[in-house]
Amino acid sequence: MRQLFELCSKDRDIRFSPFTWAIRMSLLHKGLEYEGVPRMFLEKEEIEAAGFKTFPTLKDGDVWVNDSLMIAHYLERTYPDKPLFGGEMGIAQSFLIQSLIGSQVMGPLFPLIAVDVCNALPEDQAGYFRESRTPLVGAESLEAAAEGRDGKIASIQKGWNGFRTALKAQPFLSGDGPAYADYTLFGAFQWCRVVSAFEPWAGDQLITDWLDRMLDLYGGEGRRAPRIYG
Amino acid sequence: MRQLFELCSKDRDIRFSPFTWAIRMSLLHKGLEYEGVPRMFLEKEEIEAAGFKTFPTLKDGDVWVNDSLMIAHYLERTYPDKPLFGGEMGIAQSFLIQSLIGSQVMGPLFPLIAVDVCNALPEDQAGYFRESRTPLVGAESLEAAAEGRDGKIASIQKGWNGFRTALKAQPFLSGDGPAYADYTLFGAFQWCRVVSAFEPWAGDQLITDWLDRMLDLYGGEGRRAPRIYG
Repeated sequence: MRQLFELCSKDRDIRFSPFTWAIRMSLLHKGLEYEGVPRMFLEKEEIEAAGFKTFPTLKDGDVWVNDSLMIAHYLERTYPDKPLFGGEMGIAQSFLIQSLIGSQVMGPLFPLIAVDVCNALPEDQAGYFRESRTPLVGAESLEAAAEGRDGKIASIQKGWNGFRTALKAQPFLSGDGPAYADYTLFGAFQWCRVVSAFEPWAGDQLITDWLDRMLDLYGGEGRRAPRIYG
Repeated sequence: MRQLFELCSKDRDIRFSPFTWAIRMSLLHKGLEYEGVPRMFLEKEEIEAAGFKTFPTLKDGDVWVNDSLMIAHYLERTYPDKPLFGGEMGIAQSFLIQSLIGSQVMGPLFPLIAVDVCNALPEDQAGYFRESRTPLVGAESLEAAAEGRDGKIASIQKGWNGFRTALKAQPFLSGDGPAYADYTLFGAFQWCRVVSAFEPWAGDQLITDWLDRMLDLYGGEGRRAPRIYG
């Protein structure tokens, strides 16, 4: 069985990583069966044995692939039916789309929900997470970084013009149907949904309508995923 | 003859708009002949008669198309040889790439070179430009917005990780060869090259090597374009 080694909280059914959600949706998109293998930040035995340090890592038969975008490229080239990118030019351009979602969505959201990720971990893992992530949130503590976050939603949404322009022209970021660009943005939002009560899409009708469509895909896989709040 | 109505400076041979450069390169990419028709900001008679307000506007036979991205989509669908996007999914995703280049390149650069655009215009056009653009540059004047701009290069280049990641993996943003993603970023840099002495790519080796490759394309069309400084 294909295995996706992916981050989990102290409740191992809770899979919060934005990157694993991008891959879960991609596997469903291509109709490829897989088993999600829940691992915490410090449970790296299997992936380190394969030469990697980060989640998600995919084991597909004898092939190990690490890094969500590299996994998606691997899936596209190995299983070309039901395209995620629409050809080699689409694969090439995916670096830029990943970067857009990183700079306009994941980057701004991380400091605001890092405290929720921390609270979802057991004590020893939480200590590691707090120590390694506090220097990245631009505040004295994870708690301080999240303070007043609802007041930041309007400013964050200002960075989403590109998504709104795309969704005015077409129902999905990838056109008439969803594909990897959609799964990448969905992963970022599902990260919030699964581990946090923060809803940065609130009040943005085009985006929330799109998110609803994404949550309905593949029998409602995203919608029925176990969450901490919700 | 196909006609591209495009912005020019008081020297009508100087065509500085980032958007027109994206389309010029796209026309060359597809091997489509065209005549550039130089117009200043307030010389809108022809395009207004066609129902549009902004440059560039393309007249292709009896068809008028406005807005650089819409012109590129039109070219791709009308002349599918030598793809600019690589299929409908690529066309769909181009909204996001346009947005990335807008937020990480054109947005940060505009306040820093707006004064150069102003200085390149004849007096009456410069007055219009100064009045309409000063509220957009986040400073009291176009001159003040450009002050100390060389000191801002490092911070602007921090937003270019996505471009560097792509260019570490492949020679062009679109893969093995250039296409519309490349022409969009090239347009932003050519805007600086043609109208300003500001070189925001300075010191970024991956980006400057790519820019050199872009300037060499199509017989050095970008490199030999008339410039104010250079």
